[in-house]
Amino acid sequence: MAREFPDDSVGLVKSRTQHFSEPLELDSGACLPHYDLIYETYGELNATHSNAILICHALSSDHHAAGYNSPDDRKPGWWEVCIGPGKPIDTNRFFVVCSNNLGGCKGSTGPMSPHPETGTPYGPDFPIVTVRDWVRSQARLADALGIQQWAAVIGGSLGGMQALQWAMDFPDRLRHSVVIAAAPRLSAQNIAFNEVARQAIMSDPEFFNGRFYEHDTIPRRGLMLARMLGHITYLSDDAMRAKFGRELREGKPRFGFDVEFEVESYLRYQGKAFVDRFDANTYLLMTKALDYFDPAKDFEDDLSRALANVQARFMVIAFTSDWRFAPDRSREIVKALLDGDKEVSYAEVVAHQGHDAFLMPIPNYINVFSAYTNLINVDAET
Amino acid sequence: MAREFPDDSVGLVKSRTQHFSEPLELDSGACLPHYDLIYETYGELNATHSNAILICHALSSDHHAAGYNSPDDRKPGWWEVCIGPGKPIDTNRFFVVCSNNLGGCKGSTGPMSPHPETGTPYGPDFPIVTVRDWVRSQARLADALGIQQWAAVIGGSLGGMQALQWAMDFPDRLRHSVVIAAAPRLSAQNIAFNEVARQAIMSDPEFFNGRFYEHDTIPRRGLMLARMLGHITYLSDDAMRAKFGRELREGKPRFGFDVEFEVESYLRYQGKAFVDRFDANTYLLMTKALDYFDPAKDFEDDLSRALANVQARFMVIAFTSDWRFAPDRSREIVKALLDGDKEVSYAEVVAHQGHDAFLMPIPNYINVFSAYTNLINVDAET
Repeated sequence: MAREFPDDSVGLVKSRTQHFSEPLELDSGACLPHYDLIYETYGELNATHSNAILICHALSSDHHAAGYNSPDDRKPGWWEVCIGPGKPIDTNRFFVVCSNNLGGCKGSTGPMSPHPETGTPYGPDFPIVTVRDWVRSQARLADALGIQQWAAVIGGSLGGMQALQWAMDFPDRLRHSVVIAAAPRLSAQNIAFNEVARQAIMSDPEFFNGRFYEHDTIPRRGLMLARMLGHITYLSDDAMRAKFGRELREGKPRFGFDVEFEVESYLRYQGKAFVDRFDANTYLLMTKALDYFDPAKDFEDDLSRALANVQARFMVIAFTSDWRFAPDRSREIVKALLDGDKEVSYAEVVAHQGHDAFLMPIPNYINVFSAYTNLINVDAET
Repeated sequence: MAREFPDDSVGLVKSRTQHFSEPLELDSGACLPHYDLIYETYGELNATHSNAILICHALSSDHHAAGYNSPDDRKPGWWEVCIGPGKPIDTNRFFVVCSNNLGGCKGSTGPMSPHPETGTPYGPDFPIVTVRDWVRSQARLADALGIQQWAAVIGGSLGGMQALQWAMDFPDRLRHSVVIAAAPRLSAQNIAFNEVARQAIMSDPEFFNGRFYEHDTIPRRGLMLARMLGHITYLSDDAMRAKFGRELREGKPRFGFDVEFEVESYLRYQGKAFVDRFDANTYLLMTKALDYFDPAKDFEDDLSRALANVQARFMVIAFTSDWRFAPDRSREIVKALLDGDKEVSYAEVVAHQGHDAFLMPIPNYINVFSAYTNLINVDAET
């Protein structure tokens, strides 16, 4: 008997892969001669193709944003909280598309894919990709799907940066941009954390300068450390206190270097689990895309000028306890938009969960997100 | 011709080593049969021995707190900013003592010292030491130096925790306790950062379960990562912005994994330099001492009760941009003291330098610190 999925889930979903045979010029100057993008869709595209929403994913997630990939699947997609019937990204109204970014490790062309010239994995030879490159590749996917204009492009964290870039690079191809828990560029501290994560991976003797596939190994320790460190920046100090406090695993100190506090156990578990599901070269690429994202750079650091041509209406959402991309960073985006007389709504959600709040079922967040998406007109292009 | 040192420096200093042949019982239940403490002193002990100040050091520093160890020494001790003639810890008035903590790697007995039973370095067999253990060992040093009562015990960060512990464990052996940029215990986030640092070291293949000395190597990569990570937590986001911004080393992006931003260059340099001057096993021990510090634990988490017997007057100093041990954490100490009707002064210094501010010549900090120490009576024990 078929498994019953929750009523508010899109249920069983299958990914599809789109091949692109036209070369893609990248910001770095490199060129991908051809590439694949793997993606999922939820809901139905309407007759006028006016109800499509693009979801952009963050550092370590992928195209599987909602639903279940098999009847036995235990875990739904990474944004199940926000995508589905009656949810903020309501699949009764919208046709939702989410693709794995170029450079990824879940089916889109990336470091694990065969290099066209050698047939062996790209590994470290996969070119550095930027947020702009991703947006360009996603625009081609929109073409392939017959979507001339997105009702909205939506993303959290690095995904929010893509939603912002979309509005700059293709101003007439989206009506709304929803930028959640993001920043207009990384701070020196953000870059510093990324650098430690990269050094952890690259200094792992099993990394072999990125050619670890050929050695039939993975830089397990380095990737684990990178993930542990990432996790600290995803959670607020308060959230950690609420979740772990200073609880000792065995009630009293054991005066050794095995796991002693609950938080250590959690981080080690998260780190180990990540190693089995993510590629180290992809992790490096994603952190570089974050570092390089800086749309105001070509406009003398004036974000308002960088956003001068956007036509989309914006919704910007930040979380009070997010210290990775604090509300101040979101307000920079809001201010730049307002300075340019653009339409923007801003919500600062009181939440103790830190950066990860954008993935969580926080009522005020879900409500304000839904209130905005409910206003998105899907009957006609405006 | 002899080098001229600055007038406000204690100048050329030499360390001494005190041997203790009486066993030291540790909190862990282990016992050190005998041990050495290396220390430096600055200024002159007065006739009544009432002008002695103990300086307690933080995670990665040592007994060389002020002055120069040789005529060619380029760098003075780690707290040169605060110790010397006319400085907050005025060597014209005070006799200043600073010892390297047990478990250290700069001359006190630690993992690099020979195990009494085998003659080879303790390595991972060196017992876990706690802040209480350090205080107990420092009290024996005071005995050896003929100091019955310190005019003050002073420290920043982990050193501040020792100053707090001193007042609890030997209430009649210090008149003042100066606790700077500290916390009454680590948060889950603090522990999490320590855990990533430890995992970086312990997962380095060159660590050899702590027996790397025998393999004639050091866990260079792991220790470097630990230090890089530590550095991020020592600086504020603002300080990093002021120091590095998002400056590209070569002006424009190179789209590679070599150093790209100034902050990356700085962190790699700091990490590499640290490896040559610090022992990995000591680093592990110091982070554990931080994790375990929790004086309220035996008093149902009631810090005020833990501090019930203190007699010292307290000065607590915090820095606004310190996010490792934020001012809130210092205020917990102040509140607990006030709740117990203890004497305490509190200064919250506006400074953008983050946790490292306690090492820096910030005028408001130096002034408030001097104002307090100027009031310390050295003419008679009170």
